[in-house]
Amino acid sequence: MRPRTAGIIIIGNEILSGKVGDENSHFLARELRALGVDLRRVVVIPDDVDLIADEIRWFSGTFDYVFTSGGVGPTHDDVTMEGVAAAFGVGMEESSKLARLVKAWCEEGREDRALKMALIPEGAEVLSSKGVKFPLVRMENVYVFPGIPEYLAAKFAAIKERFRGAPFRLVRIYVNEEECYITEEMDRVVGEFPGVMVGSYPRINEDDYKVVVTLESADGSELNRASQRLVGLLPEGSVVRTEEG
Amino acid sequence: MRPRTAGIIIIGNEILSGKVGDENSHFLARELRALGVDLRRVVVIPDDVDLIADEIRWFSGTFDYVFTSGGVGPTHDDVTMEGVAAAFGVGMEESSKLARLVKAWCEEGREDRALKMALIPEGAEVLSSKGVKFPLVRMENVYVFPGIPEYLAAKFAAIKERFRGAPFRLVRIYVNEEECYITEEMDRVVGEFPGVMVGSYPRINEDDYKVVVTLESADGSELNRASQRLVGLLPEGSVVRTEEG
Repeated sequence: MRPRTAGIIIIGNEILSGKVGDENSHFLARELRALGVDLRRVVVIPDDVDLIADEIRWFSGTFDYVFTSGGVGPTHDDVTMEGVAAAFGVGMEESSKLARLVKAWCEEGREDRALKMALIPEGAEVLSSKGVKFPLVRMENVYVFPGIPEYLAAKFAAIKERFRGAPFRLVRIYVNEEECYITEEMDRVVGEFPGVMVGSYPRINEDDYKVVVTLESADGSELNRASQRLVGLLPEGSVVRTEEG
Repeated sequence: MRPRTAGIIIIGNEILSGKVGDENSHFLARELRALGVDLRRVVVIPDDVDLIADEIRWFSGTFDYVFTSGGVGPTHDDVTMEGVAAAFGVGMEESSKLARLVKAWCEEGREDRALKMALIPEGAEVLSSKGVKFPLVRMENVYVFPGIPEYLAAKFAAIKERFRGAPFRLVRIYVNEEECYITEEMDRVVGEFPGVMVGSYPRINEDDYKVVVTLESADGSELNRASQRLVGLLPEGSVVRTEEG
């Protein structure tokens, strides 16, 4: 069975203007990999309803799972839920569950604006989890996360088992040669083992190696044969060490 | 004059599979902001010629400047240059300048494969700079950077002045109130100062404030009036401090 695919949509002017770095896509990339899900695309876009709707429509039709991050607060630039609704051609409705939580969070007659946070696309599911203050909103295959990394991580942890598939297995080979002296050997292994993904990553600040070669597959025995083949082909003494996992 | 716009295309399976984090887009986002360039989109895609070509074609037609990162080495998965050529409907040609550098880097009869690194799209410019080992390749408004952060930073530093426009000015207001208690005040300032970009970013791990409100504009005097207006509207005692720049 082929792995499930995923895409991530990071929403926020603050990322594009360099005010803050995006930690969420790397977090989700690692988590999804560990779950056996194949992340295929990440995009960072501004807080703009039409852009958000266009991306969500395309991602939702292209990948098995879509994760958005950001734009779910009470302020003028929080327009992700409207974007999701527009993507699916539905209106917005108040979630009574969310409205209760917003009122508890925001008192003193100031809850009117904050109740915007209780508006979700018609037909969306509100997923509560133990230890997570505000529930997660899901619309079809789109999971709408907040931009704050700690909240995103907690909410993802609560639902991640639903995404689990067959794990990818990974071997890293640390090589003390410039990339150009091992290119031919890698090409041979790529040709002989089409089911193994081979990557090659030069490093410039390491003392004992110059390139990390990665081999990855869901098929453990093919992976082992491919990595043994590559180690055998590489120049004598050039392999510093091999790591699995 | 409106600011110039930019887009970033990060190319690499290693980012999508979570093996390494992407440092380059945050670096470029900060640099571009400091240069007065408006970054509008970042995308992370796999090492796939057709996907790369599609993105480059769209980005190049949509933004003033396009920056790519990754996929420019000698190995089987380095296909960015082919993607650039396909995007512009041109073939590939050997750059004699690059060929000389590749041969100096890679001796002992192994330069044949590495000479792939000297193949660039027909009509591309090869930009040499002092202190940068391999020159940068530019095809129309597309600048092709390596994925290694240190090399990307050095190459960008060498050419960045060509992108400089009128600077954005920024004011940060640190507020010790939950976002929902300042939403109405922010909305008023957004309405009164349409030329000022207002952002609101909750923080959960700070002792003395709960939200950072940012105001940004190329017009310094309008920015000052907007930030004074917001500080005047916010609940008494809620503004912890204000920073400029």
